[in-house]
Amino acid sequence: MLNQQSIESIKKMSKLWGEIVEKLNPYTPGEQPNDLNLLKLNTNENPYGPSPYVLKNIKNKCNDSLRLYPDPESIELKKSLAEYHNLSPESVFISNGSDESLAFIFQGLLKKDKPVLFPNITYSFYPVYCQLYEIEYKQIPLDQEFNINLDDYRMENGGVIFPNPNAPTGIPKSLKEIESLLSNNNSVVVIDEAYVDFGTSSAIKLINKYENLIVTQSFSKGRSLAGMRIGCAFSSPCLIEALNRIKNSFNSYPIDRLAQISAMSSITDKIYFEDNCNKVIAARAYLEEQLKSIGFEVLPSGANFIFTQHMQKSGENIYDELRKNKILVRHFKSPEKISNFIRITIGTMNQMHKLVSVMKEIVK
Amino acid sequence: MLNQQSIESIKKMSKLWGEIVEKLNPYTPGEQPNDLNLLKLNTNENPYGPSPYVLKNIKNKCNDSLRLYPDPESIELKKSLAEYHNLSPESVFISNGSDESLAFIFQGLLKKDKPVLFPNITYSFYPVYCQLYEIEYKQIPLDQEFNINLDDYRMENGGVIFPNPNAPTGIPKSLKEIESLLSNNNSVVVIDEAYVDFGTSSAIKLINKYENLIVTQSFSKGRSLAGMRIGCAFSSPCLIEALNRIKNSFNSYPIDRLAQISAMSSITDKIYFEDNCNKVIAARAYLEEQLKSIGFEVLPSGANFIFTQHMQKSGENIYDELRKNKILVRHFKSPEKISNFIRITIGTMNQMHKLVSVMKEIVK
Repeated sequence: MLNQQSIESIKKMSKLWGEIVEKLNPYTPGEQPNDLNLLKLNTNENPYGPSPYVLKNIKNKCNDSLRLYPDPESIELKKSLAEYHNLSPESVFISNGSDESLAFIFQGLLKKDKPVLFPNITYSFYPVYCQLYEIEYKQIPLDQEFNINLDDYRMENGGVIFPNPNAPTGIPKSLKEIESLLSNNNSVVVIDEAYVDFGTSSAIKLINKYENLIVTQSFSKGRSLAGMRIGCAFSSPCLIEALNRIKNSFNSYPIDRLAQISAMSSITDKIYFEDNCNKVIAARAYLEEQLKSIGFEVLPSGANFIFTQHMQKSGENIYDELRKNKILVRHFKSPEKISNFIRITIGTMNQMHKLVSVMKEIVK
Repeated sequence: MLNQQSIESIKKMSKLWGEIVEKLNPYTPGEQPNDLNLLKLNTNENPYGPSPYVLKNIKNKCNDSLRLYPDPESIELKKSLAEYHNLSPESVFISNGSDESLAFIFQGLLKKDKPVLFPNITYSFYPVYCQLYEIEYKQIPLDQEFNINLDDYRMENGGVIFPNPNAPTGIPKSLKEIESLLSNNNSVVVIDEAYVDFGTSSAIKLINKYENLIVTQSFSKGRSLAGMRIGCAFSSPCLIEALNRIKNSFNSYPIDRLAQISAMSSITDKIYFEDNCNKVIAARAYLEEQLKSIGFEVLPSGANFIFTQHMQKSGENIYDELRKNKILVRHFKSPEKISNFIRITIGTMNQMHKLVSVMKEIVK
């Protein structure tokens, strides 16, 4: 990253830039620290690594074949996912992380003559996509309890997108409420299920019923493969074809050979995946209970993180104190409504014990 | 890929698509056949796999760390490339293949109020990017000998882009001619050096002199890593900052952990890389000489492929005959000016012997 002075001098030279570039206010991902002694609970990674079966299969493909291009369409991976979810392969799209799916969805399906709707507190990449593709949007406030109220989305729109569970609150919506929105909305509805694997119900089972529904998922959280960059989208063949057209006008081969094999192997190794998710859910319940007992409010979470604030101590202060104790969580300075909260990724039970004991000292 | 009937039925439903989607005419990459018995000379991969050092380093990183996000900025890889080319890391950009760099360049640097210029016979992804980002363009004809004549580019423009060596002709341009263009052109000039490693001079050494110059390169050809998807761009910090802004408004982590380590290791293992390129250059000289001796015209190549036509037999016919003999090359049906040619990737010397002996039968 360049410092402010360099940015100023660059702006002077920016006559070479296209018009869009200066308008952009790029997304800032969570910190990826080099300090291996930090307990890293800031970017919602899985505390358990990929399974031995996945690692073995990747290693087996570390050979001469890496000189060859990967399958541009990731057909075998599409077939595995289709079978897993009982869909046709034409209903599956593969991308470099789910962010790439989201970018193509904004560019190809949400740029309309009416504004796209999303919550005012949600994944902060959505407004960035709107800037990049010059899409009009309207943010709908959460209710007093930080819930998305889908009745508030019943207005003319060019599309609706929200995460389920929502980020960074972690609060899930029921399928019943989502289906009620779908029956009353004719534009494209995107459910961003990056965090769905930890006890939230997936809307994938509604895909054969609503052709305007599109669901995105990630291999980065429940499947322990954040380092390999695989995401996917599920929808009617009509909407998937739109994503294929965008993708094939952008980059033919976004998923490398080792990423494809890692994702396929992870789908095969279903029990390992489910066990890890269950362990994370159990550690979440423990952490929630412990934090509540020392004066924290904890929003109900269907994700692998919790969003929490203390009644006496500020979020920024707790963030700083934890960092001094070599524990890294995430704090969002804005919007103000959530600036007192911290977001904590769920780790192993041992890591949660350590966190709780430090937290008890901090709020004492 | 969907068949024509499905596409028609999808078009009827496409009221859900954004306006841009129906206009797109996506790029078609070369075939990636499943038949392992085919001699695959169609997509310009390196006949030699990655070095043992590269493979060992990838395997060493197949561990628990894959649960963690990669470095979003690929800092270590930028530093290696900067050192290798004697540039500052702020002059280096990393992407998912060089196609992703090219896409960001079109979106962020070539969308201007004047048309971008490129050859009428060149990498066929350029007009696709122009469609995707709604960029006006003008194609400049090659001369009678299939050369890019840079004097023809001296007109008002919103940018200039061409591959060096050009694709699919393989013909290189000298740095002297490129520098002459740069001294007379104030807009952004992009040199796409996907095939530069096989005897063509790189324009990277001009980067500190011309802030409007941007050079893209790939790890897919000379560095034997097509399966791992790594590309890069080199330019003044001003233009690189524009690409960073686009990238960070699109996808934070496009290069996975194993791709980053494979690219860094390949830079370290310089001798292996140079040896392979030299072997390919020697096999190219052999193939060129042999084909000329049996009635082929061969355009002078600075790439790891040759573009060639036979005086009596059509390109399509030779393509078909080779395929019957389990040899896959590339044939472009359009534009008509090149429809009699075939493009042949340079393989090992043994593979070239085999190809020549089949070719002798075909043209007998």
